[in-house]
Amino acid sequence: MTRRVTLLTDFGTADGFVGAMKGVIADGAPGVVIDDVAHDLPSGDVVAAAYALRRYWRLYPEGTIHVVVVDPGVGTSRRALTLQAEGRFIVCPDNGCASRVLEDATSWRAVDLSRVQTPEAVRTGRSRTFHGRDVFAPAAAALAHGASLEELGASLTDPLLIPEPSPTRSGTRVAGVVVAIDRFGNLLTNVPGEWLAASAKVEIRGRTAAARATYGDAHEGELIALISSDGRVEVAVRGGSAAALLGASRGDEVAVVG
Amino acid sequence: MTRRVTLLTDFGTADGFVGAMKGVIADGAPGVVIDDVAHDLPSGDVVAAAYALRRYWRLYPEGTIHVVVVDPGVGTSRRALTLQAEGRFIVCPDNGCASRVLEDATSWRAVDLSRVQTPEAVRTGRSRTFHGRDVFAPAAAALAHGASLEELGASLTDPLLIPEPSPTRSGTRVAGVVVAIDRFGNLLTNVPGEWLAASAKVEIRGRTAAARATYGDAHEGELIALISSDGRVEVAVRGGSAAALLGASRGDEVAVVG
Amino acid sequence: MTRRVTLLTDFGTADGFVGAMKGVIADGAPGVVIDDVAHDLPSGDVVAAAYALRRYWRLYPEGTIHVVVVDPGVGTSRRALTLQAEGRFIVCPDNGCASRVLEDATSWRAVDLSRVQTPEAVRTGRSRTFHGRDVFAPAAAALAHGASLEELGASLTDPLLIPEPSPTRSGTRVAGVVVAIDRFGNLLTNVPGEWLAASAKVEIRGRTAAARATYGDAHEGELIALISSDGRVEVAVRGGSAAALLGASRGDEVAVVG
Repeated sequence: MTRRVTLLTDFGTADGFVGAMKGVIADGAPGVVIDDVAHDLPSGDVVAAAYALRRYWRLYPEGTIHVVVVDPGVGTSRRALTLQAEGRFIVCPDNGCASRVLEDATSWRAVDLSRVQTPEAVRTGRSRTFHGRDVFAPAAAALAHGASLEELGASLTDPLLIPEPSPTRSGTRVAGVVVAIDRFGNLLTNVPGEWLAASAKVEIRGRTAAARATYGDAHEGELIALISSDGRVEVAVRGGSAAALLGASRGDEVAVVG
Repeated sequence: MTRRVTLLTDFGTADGFVGAMKGVIADGAPGVVIDDVAHDLPSGDVVAAAYALRRYWRLYPEGTIHVVVVDPGVGTSRRALTLQAEGRFIVCPDNGCASRVLEDATSWRAVDLSRVQTPEAVRTGRSRTFHGRDVFAPAAAALAHGASLEELGASLTDPLLIPEPSPTRSGTRVAGVVVAIDRFGNLLTNVPGEWLAASAKVEIRGRTAAARATYGDAHEGELIALISSDGRVEVAVRGGSAAALLGASRGDEVAVVG
Repeated sequence: MTRRVTLLTDFGTADGFVGAMKGVIADGAPGVVIDDVAHDLPSGDVVAAAYALRRYWRLYPEGTIHVVVVDPGVGTSRRALTLQAEGRFIVCPDNGCASRVLEDATSWRAVDLSRVQTPEAVRTGRSRTFHGRDVFAPAAAALAHGASLEELGASLTDPLLIPEPSPTRSGTRVAGVVVAIDRFGNLLTNVPGEWLAASAKVEIRGRTAAARATYGDAHEGELIALISSDGRVEVAVRGGSAAALLGASRGDEVAVVG
């Protein structure tokens, strides 16, 4: 069976770091298929990584190994982990990257990566600055080669969870926040889509967006609220960027009214 | 046989959207190999997508499934399609993305994607905003798994074609336009390369570029015209960007003289 | 056995050039796996390519085919080559891209690519401007399909080497230079890590960076010197960019003192 590994990092694509990780994985698990998800995450942005991972971890088949390396704490005492959740593996620093998986999975178990062997080929020994190559890639290779979770490290029961803030309801008004902004400038909120009535309005940064079923129901340039592909309330501009129009950023308050 | 899928989108590489598409494809067609072509196309630029696709669709072997998702009309009534052309498949919105394939292929047939099943794993049901994940990826997975064109949808005979403007000839003067600009700032035109005589000149934005056989025949910084790797007349600057030097953009007029 | 090809280019990811190369490789070697390393190298920056390649060429298993296309001299008389070094292949223009491999490999041999056949599918014939598609991809496909080095071309014993400058020592002071800057703004130098004593300081652009074992030993925003994942002295800012803080660029002088 072909094993599949995915990569999500903030390494960019102007250097050889991604190649170093892939080389270690390919060396440890010949024939493995490696899918890039994204390498241009904002540098060190663990929360953005958590939301990006949420979009795909469970769509891949069981057995897939998802590697996430957004690691501002490399070289500190932060732990490294592998999570097994609904048959998929998540290999990442223990810094909150896996928060959305921890919240969404029906069950999970985790190990630290204390038993992962840095491969011989990394000649200078395990570095203090590039655990993507020296810890996470070898862990992924071991899993792709058939290792069990326990071969990677000791059980870990308290992975760092950065909880998603909960929306609050008061009468017909729901207060939430922008949790992620995508490349099109759409604003993803923490408000469940079922709370967006067809006649609702969303208030954000002094502006009001009317609920629409889809982009096709809006005119070009209109600020609208709709149910995103993740089932959340999203604020968007048809054919434009809501983030740019509103000067919005993550954490901005939104209110769904009526 | 390993099936091969390629992806061309404007999703960027700072998010999880590409991962969502790949997850659905990998889940539906285990062992499939997925090649990224590009994910940084200008947002919503269907014409740029059409020219990018032209550069590779026929170089891949027969049986390859090319997925293109540049989809400003998602959520409107625009159709989705799969084209079979010279043994390759093109899966994309019916918005002109496939225009160059329609023009270049010796023959083709097409279906809409009305019979594509959104996979169970996409829990919120088929979304109105992310057909890359909910329609195009499942169609690609079905093809990679061996489905016939007819299993995807009903026959479609009028895919949207955004025709390439034709150059016009008058005496020794050929009038054309810039149809695409690449990352190096080279200006690709619609004028066939065989119309560029060795002694010809190309006029563009008040400047004149002399014909050269290749970059090596020009001095550093020289504005030149040459036959591109697509067999078209191209305007370039050796070691620089013609687009920047001329302030050129798509649609600018060019004239090949003499 | 699945053959593996890696790609490192400056083609960007907003066009179809990468797709054209992959198509030719996939057509010539069905079932091949192609790993992207990076496509956003600074345009024409051969030295950056050489340092990027250094990070991964030997981490991949023997038999891997590394393709590097940063080719400002395409269309001039510069040669094309394939290098076999420690069981891996490097396919690239003969412009210095392979310099770090030539320096690091215990042994190598090389051929020019004079016998490579441009595939029939590239209909306009071998172009003068896109050797990535017309020369390097076909060479990679041939190797992936089992060709020997000799089938690609004639022996070549003098590939272009852009030597890395050597650091110079005088008393307790080592003078070196910045050789590469990564996406995080870390400054990689040519000074071997073993020359960085625990009590050493690094002088650069009028500032002084104290040696630290790892980022975790520095406070946020501190300018530090440490041993990089390549075993070199590196200047960094914890949680920030040393390049931005110092206005540093490649070639800047550094001194390791004490």
